[in-house]
Amino acid sequence: MPDSDSSAAAGSLMAAEIAQQPTVLQGILDHAPSSLSAALDLVQQRRPRFVLIAARGTSDHAALYAKYLVEIQLGLPAGLTSPSTFTLYRSQPDLRDVLVLLVSQSGSSPDLTQTAEAARSLGAVTVAFTNAPGSPLAEAAAAHVDISAGFELAVAATKTYSAQLLSLWLFINGLRKGDPGQASSVPDAVAQILTRDPEIADLAQRYRFADRFILTARGYSYPTAREAALKLMETSYVAAHAFSGADLLHGPVALIDHAYPVIAIARDDVGGRALESVIRTARARGGDVCAFGSPAAVSAAGLGLDVETGTPTVSEDLAPIVDIAALQTLALHIALNRGLDPDAPRGLSKVTRTL
Amino acid sequence: MPDSDSSAAAGSLMAAEIAQQPTVLQGILDHAPSSLSAALDLVQQRRPRFVLIAARGTSDHAALYAKYLVEIQLGLPAGLTSPSTFTLYRSQPDLRDVLVLLVSQSGSSPDLTQTAEAARSLGAVTVAFTNAPGSPLAEAAAAHVDISAGFELAVAATKTYSAQLLSLWLFINGLRKGDPGQASSVPDAVAQILTRDPEIADLAQRYRFADRFILTARGYSYPTAREAALKLMETSYVAAHAFSGADLLHGPVALIDHAYPVIAIARDDVGGRALESVIRTARARGGDVCAFGSPAAVSAAGLGLDVETGTPTVSEDLAPIVDIAALQTLALHIALNRGLDPDAPRGLSKVTRTL
Repeated sequence: MPDSDSSAAAGSLMAAEIAQQPTVLQGILDHAPSSLSAALDLVQQRRPRFVLIAARGTSDHAALYAKYLVEIQLGLPAGLTSPSTFTLYRSQPDLRDVLVLLVSQSGSSPDLTQTAEAARSLGAVTVAFTNAPGSPLAEAAAAHVDISAGFELAVAATKTYSAQLLSLWLFINGLRKGDPGQASSVPDAVAQILTRDPEIADLAQRYRFADRFILTARGYSYPTAREAALKLMETSYVAAHAFSGADLLHGPVALIDHAYPVIAIARDDVGGRALESVIRTARARGGDVCAFGSPAAVSAAGLGLDVETGTPTVSEDLAPIVDIAALQTLALHIALNRGLDPDAPRGLSKVTRTL
Repeated sequence: MPDSDSSAAAGSLMAAEIAQQPTVLQGILDHAPSSLSAALDLVQQRRPRFVLIAARGTSDHAALYAKYLVEIQLGLPAGLTSPSTFTLYRSQPDLRDVLVLLVSQSGSSPDLTQTAEAARSLGAVTVAFTNAPGSPLAEAAAAHVDISAGFELAVAATKTYSAQLLSLWLFINGLRKGDPGQASSVPDAVAQILTRDPEIADLAQRYRFADRFILTARGYSYPTAREAALKLMETSYVAAHAFSGADLLHGPVALIDHAYPVIAIARDDVGGRALESVIRTARARGGDVCAFGSPAAVSAAGLGLDVETGTPTVSEDLAPIVDIAALQTLALHIALNRGLDPDAPRGLSKVTRTL
């Protein structure tokens, strides 16, 4: 029996799923799942005072994004929780008045399912966000939001990440009774970014022989830096390290020299403007800085892609859904330039089961 | 006027401060600062239900250690908070019933001071842990615990890190009315680890030309992996990346091949035993694995330093204070082998001021 995958072009699955993002995101906006309103009703009745978020891998970066939304927009203290405190150390914290969000593409990692079960028994209200409605995690949580990304075949998660971000945004926006229409420009903005593929492919050439990367951003964009680093690691096996701009200056800046590429995510917004001094510091050290951001950031870096020009305006809190498409595309091209197949990363499978 | 530092041997400051740790830690146990009991009194009156912890750089790893202690031993939900949510985004979360811990060696970074001020005005009870009693952060928080490490000269923090860990342990142990005598073996255990310097220097030889490292651990030891990675980055400019064992399997494991050194921290305890499958996976991929941990972990890795044999027994929650001494020593030797001076890392100063 012929293996139909073996004849597919390298990276064709990942490329196809990157390209599906405008459609997936528009679908989420057009048909907000009934599961979302059920989750909102449940949480609003319980009036939580504190939020914990649990996730692994790519989903952990969606969790970090949600943490910023909760802290800044809901005005509730929030933390990312380590599944190991529940699964290994059998911690029994008092979780009354606590909302626990669990984020997982597959809903199949036992540590998250056990965390949901433990949190529920300790008094928390639990909401799972997955792409798999019948999964163990979806069943274990009190409420489940289907991120509705469609089946994801590529090992490197792309469309499920942006679908997680938009679903979490809609959920948190719903809790504060905000206007969901604010997100209506997002699918078009992603589509516009995807038309920049040739420019991104050109940028990727520069990194043919780079084996280490630093990614940096601040605030809402910091999860974008983290997720971009993971995409580079998964698909090109480079040592890609993300730092918040502030943490970078507390030590790791010592790494930067002429041989160390730095990629900054810096729109013309609160987080992006706070990154300007970091870009200047990195360049002053001889670093090769490339900015995905505002024209001013690209100019300060001397290299990059302006992600604002020509795209519909999106607010700072929604920009991560747009910007990650550019960085997913960069990771794809960097892998392809090396003759690697990002659809077949060594040693990875689509679902990772950890305890 | 002669510059007396210029004639000092490379790394002599860092080496001296690593060596001071048993004395510093014994001093903290013998003379628990009155500031500690004042902080405990304040917090016990307020009976917090949630804990947030803010820090940067090395201190952020002490914060992560405290998060495990709070979750597991106090049974309170906890999170690491991003100063930027307060300083850049001007978030106004409801922090009544919230304990906010702020950890900083110098107490001088404006973002932490602003976070303390904002948290206090939003209803939190705030406790700062610094090595600088008169610092802006010490003044801004409602209570201040002096970590009493003595003046630290080396740019790479060593004794202030272990002093932060022990001070945080004593504080959290005090909140749960535990027996502080449990920590009495720690200074001797650190002293024993320091006698292993020749073995660690031998191990360091192996890494003369390594420019990328993965560090991995689980649970209480995960902060040790993070801090060891930062020491390697600061002093040898290598790309050292720490992953929890579970997150490593969710993607970054693709990095590991015969040219990628992996350093695992794995005692014979709950977190260390959960790492055994990670060590096996890394070796099966051809990874060069070195374990700092139990004899079993060293044997599974095929290389390493058993940190349990010959040292007084310390419990799992205190082991990070001991183990980091071995990893600090490793970082020192790796830098010296390259002809670098870890006391003069390029581009770093002792106090980093970020907003």
